[in-house]
Amino acid sequence: MDIRIHAPLDMHLHLREGALLRLVAPLSARDFAGAVIMPNLVPAVDTLERLATYRAEVEAATAPHTFAPLMTLFFRQYDEALLTAVRPHIIGVKLYPEGVTTNSADGVRDLQRIEPTLAVLERLGIPLLVHGESHGFVLDREAEFLRTYTRWANLFPRLTIVMEHITTAAAVRLLDEYANLAATVTLHHLLLTLDDVVGGLLSPHAFCKPIAKRPEDRAALLEAALHAHPRLMFGSDSAPHPVERKEAAGCAAGIFSAPVSLPLLAELFARHDALDQLQAFVSDNARTVYGITPPAKTVTLAERPWQVPARYGEVVPFYAGQTLAWQVVEVA
Amino acid sequence: MDIRIHAPLDMHLHLREGALLRLVAPLSARDFAGAVIMPNLVPAVDTLERLATYRAEVEAATAPHTFAPLMTLFFRQYDEALLTAVRPHIIGVKLYPEGVTTNSADGVRDLQRIEPTLAVLERLGIPLLVHGESHGFVLDREAEFLRTYTRWANLFPRLTIVMEHITTAAAVRLLDEYANLAATVTLHHLLLTLDDVVGGLLSPHAFCKPIAKRPEDRAALLEAALHAHPRLMFGSDSAPHPVERKEAAGCAAGIFSAPVSLPLLAELFARHDALDQLQAFVSDNARTVYGITPPAKTVTLAERPWQVPARYGEVVPFYAGQTLAWQVVEVA
Repeated sequence: MDIRIHAPLDMHLHLREGALLRLVAPLSARDFAGAVIMPNLVPAVDTLERLATYRAEVEAATAPHTFAPLMTLFFRQYDEALLTAVRPHIIGVKLYPEGVTTNSADGVRDLQRIEPTLAVLERLGIPLLVHGESHGFVLDREAEFLRTYTRWANLFPRLTIVMEHITTAAAVRLLDEYANLAATVTLHHLLLTLDDVVGGLLSPHAFCKPIAKRPEDRAALLEAALHAHPRLMFGSDSAPHPVERKEAAGCAAGIFSAPVSLPLLAELFARHDALDQLQAFVSDNARTVYGITPPAKTVTLAERPWQVPARYGEVVPFYAGQTLAWQVVEVA
Repeated sequence: MDIRIHAPLDMHLHLREGALLRLVAPLSARDFAGAVIMPNLVPAVDTLERLATYRAEVEAATAPHTFAPLMTLFFRQYDEALLTAVRPHIIGVKLYPEGVTTNSADGVRDLQRIEPTLAVLERLGIPLLVHGESHGFVLDREAEFLRTYTRWANLFPRLTIVMEHITTAAAVRLLDEYANLAATVTLHHLLLTLDDVVGGLLSPHAFCKPIAKRPEDRAALLEAALHAHPRLMFGSDSAPHPVERKEAAGCAAGIFSAPVSLPLLAELFARHDALDQLQAFVSDNARTVYGITPPAKTVTLAERPWQVPARYGEVVPFYAGQTLAWQVVEVA
């Protein structure tokens, strides 16, 4: 059996820089027609110049694949002139509360003070992408942040607010309450719960932010994905770290899922008799939410086993060494 | 400032075997007058012969310290003759549900089938020590097991049932409902929450079973310890693993806290103005619950900084490299 997906999109991707970017970017560019590229580098992508340089680096690493880097700007209290100038070059602005995840030390401290900037984004029609976690207890961080989403969804009804990498049933419910809220969900949050991180042996390669939650949370996310909720988009949050930063006394958060995303999604949707919803989940919903037209690219997946490599360079991928039921067999 | 503790007892301790035992046992024997020695070796301590051999190994490694190894037998459906013969040599029988923690593959599968054996333990006056976790979702395992404790507490009112290493506010509440229930609590569950394991970087050296829970759970445990709840006993659950089993793709559960237990407990109780309760928590309560008389030994702790070693042999201790405010200054 095989399926064709038109212009699959990864709406949340970490490509890093330098050698690591050159290692991982081609793997995304092979399978996807485009991806939303996260700006939390050190230093962050927060100027027109830095944006242009980073885009050029991504394009160099992903050529000759057909692949559109959908660039984002690291949220700061930019003025209207800057945002107007940058608008043609970005898909949105990515907001990190200070210190909530990798390379977010420079994020927003006071969420209310930035609302004038959100008003400018709304006026200019620039989507706001948000890492929505509070600084509370690890299991409550997303739930606590839902208050902020609710406030902004009410205050800025024409601002598209994307709740990135949602992990809870409560976030799925919130999605239904406000037409200006959208969300991404990762592959790993459709597959894992906290049991996979700390339930048996401790598993650094299943450790990510936000942390995987309870079985009922995963069930709600999966239900929404399998039914291709129109404002839920696939975003891998694929986030490579060298193995020595994962298997260590202090293990960095992040799962490198880019090279296995489409095969595992096909397997998951097939297992739930939902393959007919996969096109919407990995492409069409994003086109509608963002109003974008990705480059023409058709990816064919076949139900044919392959073994995931133990490593890509110094990076251990999700499902390392395991045999997957589906693989990408043609890209046209 | 200094304090004296008479016959401090560690009511839940993993000493392992061989070289690792010879490394860690003297550290417990230096600070404590006795400890309950866990039987989940491979193979398990489940015969009179194995018990005698293991006790001899512990005694050899802890000499010349004044230290009473309070031996336990790995739970099986022993007959009355065996239990009668072993009774003088043990402080209790330790029950592991199958597969819930390190070296428990050989534990109990069907908890109802073993109730005739529990009746024999009750008749003979042998305490039952329990690793009380279900096979459910990692955060629910202890809560789900409370039903079993309740059932047994009712069925066997003269059986002393020790809920080992409790981690939840619900377990603390259950302690108050049945006079035949007692409990141990570890040092690390008085200090850590799940935030310390997965809230920042992933911390293998804070990873243990049962996993540390929510802030309100820790608060309930701490409240009970600081007030020296009469059926709550200190049990470190100190569980050494070589560093290569901790900082790895699959990290073993266990925190090696033996060498820092008394100093950190002194610091914790001092911070809460509860030093006057420490004697009960680390010794007197255990004497009452088990009806034991430990060897005479007085340990003096002084408020004087010391730095915890980064390693003891190949084992990374709790609070490795950190400076503690209290230390053991005299043992007499």
